[in-house]
Amino acid sequence: MAIRIALDAMGGDSGPAPLVEGAALAMAEEPELSVALVGDPDRISAELARLGVGEEKRLPIVPATQVVEMGESPMDALRKKRDSSILVAFREHRENRADGVVSAGNSGATMAAAIRCLGRLPGVARPGIAGVFPTLKRPVLMMDVGANVDCRPKHLFQFGVMASVYHELCFATSAPRVGLLSIGEERGKGNALVRKAHELFSNSALNYVGNIEGGDIWSGDLDVVVCDGFVGNVCLKISEGLAEALSRMLRDEITGSLSSRLGYLMSRSAFGRFRKRIDYAEYGGAPLLGLRGYGIVGHGRSSAVAVKNAIMVAADMIGKDIVGRIGKKLERGGLFDVPDEDFDTEAG
Amino acid sequence: MAIRIALDAMGGDSGPAPLVEGAALAMAEEPELSVALVGDPDRISAELARLGVGEEKRLPIVPATQVVEMGESPMDALRKKRDSSILVAFREHRENRADGVVSAGNSGATMAAAIRCLGRLPGVARPGIAGVFPTLKRPVLMMDVGANVDCRPKHLFQFGVMASVYHELCFATSAPRVGLLSIGEERGKGNALVRKAHELFSNSALNYVGNIEGGDIWSGDLDVVVCDGFVGNVCLKISEGLAEALSRMLRDEITGSLSSRLGYLMSRSAFGRFRKRIDYAEYGGAPLLGLRGYGIVGHGRSSAVAVKNAIMVAADMIGKDIVGRIGKKLERGGLFDVPDEDFDTEAG
Repeated sequence: MAIRIALDAMGGDSGPAPLVEGAALAMAEEPELSVALVGDPDRISAELARLGVGEEKRLPIVPATQVVEMGESPMDALRKKRDSSILVAFREHRENRADGVVSAGNSGATMAAAIRCLGRLPGVARPGIAGVFPTLKRPVLMMDVGANVDCRPKHLFQFGVMASVYHELCFATSAPRVGLLSIGEERGKGNALVRKAHELFSNSALNYVGNIEGGDIWSGDLDVVVCDGFVGNVCLKISEGLAEALSRMLRDEITGSLSSRLGYLMSRSAFGRFRKRIDYAEYGGAPLLGLRGYGIVGHGRSSAVAVKNAIMVAADMIGKDIVGRIGKKLERGGLFDVPDEDFDTEAG
Repeated sequence: MAIRIALDAMGGDSGPAPLVEGAALAMAEEPELSVALVGDPDRISAELARLGVGEEKRLPIVPATQVVEMGESPMDALRKKRDSSILVAFREHRENRADGVVSAGNSGATMAAAIRCLGRLPGVARPGIAGVFPTLKRPVLMMDVGANVDCRPKHLFQFGVMASVYHELCFATSAPRVGLLSIGEERGKGNALVRKAHELFSNSALNYVGNIEGGDIWSGDLDVVVCDGFVGNVCLKISEGLAEALSRMLRDEITGSLSSRLGYLMSRSAFGRFRKRIDYAEYGGAPLLGLRGYGIVGHGRSSAVAVKNAIMVAADMIGKDIVGRIGKKLERGGLFDVPDEDFDTEAG
C-alpha cells in the first residue's frame, strides 16, 4: 500500500534544507512512500535542485504562503496564518490527500493544527506528545513532553493509557510497564497532581509499576513514563543539554594531553557508536497521540537523517493502522472510565 | 573562630560509616572545626574505632535513639520520633551548642526539623533547598530542588531572591544572573505558575534574564535557576541518572574491542578528570535557604568525601555569616514586597 506523508517543509530552526533532504532520503529508502513538500514552492524547488532531484511524482510540492515561527503563540499564529505550511499540511491529511503529517516546526502549533483539522479520538480529553528517550536497554516513551503544561489527574491517566496502547501495538510489547514520574517511590510522594493521578493508575487495568524518580527513566526497565507536558519538556531539554555538555567536557579533557588524544584516536569507533546511541536523531520524531489521524513532531534542530526517521515513524504507524487500533482499544476497554474529580493544587 | 557542626550520623542510605568517616576527614582538614556526631553511640563508637580515631574532643557523640528512614513521611516521622537524630541535631543548633547542621538523610524531614527548630527568616513564606549543578563553566544554583512540591508564584520569586543573595555573598558574584525554568524563552511560555512568576521577576530589582529552557542550565551562563521543588527534584535525579547511564554506555562501547580498550588505558586520566568534574560528591551538600540558621542536606548516597565537602560548605556559610547577611539584605531591600495574588492552575 502506498503511504502518503505531508511534510511541513518550512518549520524548524534551519528552514527547508534538512526537511527536503530528509524527504528525499525517505523516498529513496522506501519505494512505496510519497512525501508532499508543503511550503514556499520557490524555496523547495531550489532545495530539490541543490540535491539534484528533478521533478519527481513522489515528492510533489503543495504551496503554502505562510510559516508559523518557532517562538509564536500557537493560537495567535493559527488564527492569523490560515495559509501556513502546518495548517495546509494537516488540511491535506483531513481531505485525504495525505495519510499523515510530519513537522519539525513549532510543536504547540503542530498540536493545535492537528486538533483543529483532525479532531480527537472519542473519550480523549487532551491529546499529547509521546517523546522517545534512549536508555541502557530499550527506548522509553514519555508522555506528555510539551503539549499540555497544566494538567488534571485524569489527563495524566489518559496519557498513560494512550502511550501504553501505542507501545503495545507499535513495539509488540505485552503489558507495557507504566511509571508515574514523581520525586520518591512511596505512595504519598509527589505534588498534588501526581498524588491524585497515582490513585487513578493504582485502580486501573494498566501494568502500573508505581511512582518512579527521574533517574529511573534511564534504567530501561520501563516502557512508559507519565508526566505533565511542562515537566516532560523540561526533562527532554535538560537531558539533551546534559548529553551535549558531557560530550564537550569529555572532549575537552581528552584533547588536553597527547596520550589522551592518541587514546581517543584508537577508541574513536567506540565514541562513534556511543554518540549514535544517544543521538535523538536516530529515534525520529515524537507521535501525537489521541487524534483521529497521524501527526509526528521532530526536533526543531532536526538533521536530514532525523527528518527521514520521523517520516519512517509516521509511515510505520500508518501501515500498522495504529490510530484505528488505539481507537478500538479505547472504545472496547472502557479504559477512560475514571472519575474526573475536582482538582486544585494545594499550594494556596 | 571555632565552628561547631552537628552531623546527623544516622541518616542516608548507607548508615553511619561514610558519615563518621566524612566528619573525621573534615576535622583533619580544618583545625578550627568540631563535628558532633548525633545518633546511636554504640554504632558511632564502632565506626570511630574502625577508623582508628580514639576519643577526640572535636568529634563528640550526642546520643539519639531514633532514626527517620529515607521513605518516611517527614511530618509523621517527626511527630512520632522526637528523639530522632535529625531533630536532636537541630536542637543542638537551636540551643547554641552547634552553629549548623549537616544531614544526608530524608531531605523532607531535614527541612521540617529545621523549620520547627530554627524558624524562618522574616518575610520568607517557604524556605527551600538550593541544589548545585556542575556546568561547562561554573556551578549553577537551582532552587527549589525538593522541599516545596506545590508552589505559588510568590514562592518561586522568593526562591530567586534568596538564591541570588546567597550566590552574591557566598561566591562573591555581582548581580547573579537569575533564570526561570520554563519550556520556551518567550514571555507567554510555561505553565500558569511560571507565567505569573515571570511577571514578578520582570518587575523586580534582580538581574533577571527571563525564561530559560532545561538545556540552558548546562551552558554555565546562569548563576541561579528557579523552579518549584517537584520540577527541581526531577531535574536533579534525571541529570544524575543520565550522567551515570552515559558513563556506562561509553564504558560498554569502549570495552567492546581491543583497540578501544588500549585507547581507553591511554586516555584514562582524562576520564578520571571527567568523572571528577561531573561527580556530585565534589560539590558537597545543598544549603537550606530561608531559615534562622544553617542546614545542609547531602545526597542519601553520599560518600565520605561528599560528607566532608558538605561539612565544609556549612562551615564556609557559617564563617561568612551568610544567614545574618541574607536576613539583613531581605529586611533592607524590601525584596519580598510583591503582591501575593490569588493563584490557581488553569488545568480545570
